[in-house]
Amino acid sequence: MPHKLAFIGFGTVGQGLAEILRDKADALREGYGFEAQVVAISDAVKGAIYHPDGLDIQTALTVVQEQGSLNDYPDLPGLVRGWDSIKTIRDSNADIIVEVAWTDLETGEPAISHVRAAFESGKHVVTSNKGPAALAYHELRRLADSHRLHWGIEGTVMSGTPALRLAQAALAGCRINEIRGILNGTTNFILTQMEGGASYADSLAEAQRLGYAEADPTADVEGHDALGKLLILAAVVMDTPLAREDVACQGISHLTPDDVKRAQAEGKRWKLIAQLRRDGSQLQASVGPQAIPQDAPLAGVGGATNAITYVTDLLGEVTLVGPGAGRPETGFALLADLLNIHAT
Amino acid sequence: MPHKLAFIGFGTVGQGLAEILRDKADALREGYGFEAQVVAISDAVKGAIYHPDGLDIQTALTVVQEQGSLNDYPDLPGLVRGWDSIKTIRDSNADIIVEVAWTDLETGEPAISHVRAAFESGKHVVTSNKGPAALAYHELRRLADSHRLHWGIEGTVMSGTPALRLAQAALAGCRINEIRGILNGTTNFILTQMEGGASYADSLAEAQRLGYAEADPTADVEGHDALGKLLILAAVVMDTPLAREDVACQGISHLTPDDVKRAQAEGKRWKLIAQLRRDGSQLQASVGPQAIPQDAPLAGVGGATNAITYVTDLLGEVTLVGPGAGRPETGFALLADLLNIHAT
Repeated sequence: MPHKLAFIGFGTVGQGLAEILRDKADALREGYGFEAQVVAISDAVKGAIYHPDGLDIQTALTVVQEQGSLNDYPDLPGLVRGWDSIKTIRDSNADIIVEVAWTDLETGEPAISHVRAAFESGKHVVTSNKGPAALAYHELRRLADSHRLHWGIEGTVMSGTPALRLAQAALAGCRINEIRGILNGTTNFILTQMEGGASYADSLAEAQRLGYAEADPTADVEGHDALGKLLILAAVVMDTPLAREDVACQGISHLTPDDVKRAQAEGKRWKLIAQLRRDGSQLQASVGPQAIPQDAPLAGVGGATNAITYVTDLLGEVTLVGPGAGRPETGFALLADLLNIHAT
Repeated sequence: MPHKLAFIGFGTVGQGLAEILRDKADALREGYGFEAQVVAISDAVKGAIYHPDGLDIQTALTVVQEQGSLNDYPDLPGLVRGWDSIKTIRDSNADIIVEVAWTDLETGEPAISHVRAAFESGKHVVTSNKGPAALAYHELRRLADSHRLHWGIEGTVMSGTPALRLAQAALAGCRINEIRGILNGTTNFILTQMEGGASYADSLAEAQRLGYAEADPTADVEGHDALGKLLILAAVVMDTPLAREDVACQGISHLTPDDVKRAQAEGKRWKLIAQLRRDGSQLQASVGPQAIPQDAPLAGVGGATNAITYVTDLLGEVTLVGPGAGRPETGFALLADLLNIHAT
């Protein structure tokens, strides 16, 4: 029986997953016995379609990519149009909700309401949306558990690079005492550019030109994006809920070429480090630039790449390096969560 | 019900696991519902003890660490002494065999016979022994599957650093097209020392002094150890059995301080790289020193640390860095495999 998926949101990430499901259908069936059918897509801007017997993924991708709207998806018997996100979650026959609507790290909405509605309707959720995991992790995890439902959130920290699965599954049995991460690719790209001699302003402009930074780069360069990911790591890996106010947060916009040169002369590299450290029963949390020695594993991570170091009791330091954003990369994170639901 | 374990071999790795089971008993029970009872230990040199109701781990560790032998383990009703490895595997009431006897990469024995006997007796196996996985992976995996038994081999490649679990579980859904690894800590330590100006001979002597290299360092410095791990990666991750003769293999003993200096001047670092690359339906395999650019993730890996890069279709490059040897580290690999058996 194929899994029936409803997409809430159909932007870059949702389309990325849809493309993977289209391109890898045979490999996923043969390799993992996994089959998926998209029954609904509801996007606040692009419109909504639902068919209980399944939509055609390629047709949905084509109309969105060519017309920018699902309104041109062809009529056929049984097709329903115009359901909003909550109605799609509650009333469609999907068994898994793919929550890929927009991220709001102030309120977590509308994603928190989407996730809650899904669990209340007996549906699993996979999401790359940081809001619910950063702001309401324990409430939503309890709700999922009480309904024996899965909540896949691998894509919320380093997109497809399996930072959470490494900590929760592969390092199970170790105690993780500290986490240090380069969790924002935009700032790491800017800092790498500055090591080549560029000013902060020019490096930011280059990041914007390449699509790494948004027109308003505040969320990245002031550390807010990394902070959101740190809250998720605190909740998921350290089992400790933190509020944003609990995290000392500083960005990189004050760093000068002189700061960068001075660090280089000392054999160090500036990195925006998100850090959690157990201190008795407390958790110390911070986001800020650190000049770290060139021979530390995180120092070697250049460009838009992300990395995370877990400091453990039995293994010492284990570091995972990989992409932290991107269309197929984040699509893969959702696929990994889907395969996990399928396997259990 | 606690899992009943029989240890075949009780050297550094076996004792490392025993210490973890002793020290983490409460955490493993509370965190994972996991309980283990050691019912048998059979070591070719230190003797053998078996009790169907369980041995006392601390007492076994004490007599071995103080007397070097299990013969001083106290008599008690029901205790059986002197069973060899095969009899212990076949006739004890263990449900999991912890195979930690010595490694022989020429024949794979006696470990291959141990693993085969375990599966034929309906017992799961966890092992850090490279021999069976490098030389008889597909035969033994089929045997395990046909008896619906687990064969845990995480510790065979990077000790406790979960190189196999990353590829098989966390990256499931990706296609891995290439693997590049620093899989031998001894050679990486020597190369790092040489970058500080030391000769090959002095660096090797320092590695021997610190216990990283053996008196006869051939297996490490000529690449044979890395080659054995590469055969395991080929079989497990690439599903392609290779023989040792299929791998072009060169060590590091011919590298001179001039070679190292020349690479440094070009912004490169010498690393002993074990590499697998899909080429149509073929698998290209090699072990040899490569001068790699300083900004590649593997270039930043210094000292005795290991690392592996998976080149994937959806994520590009994902690199895992961590210890590749050590007593608690390899003990943890076995624990991770035990927890995996427990969870499924």
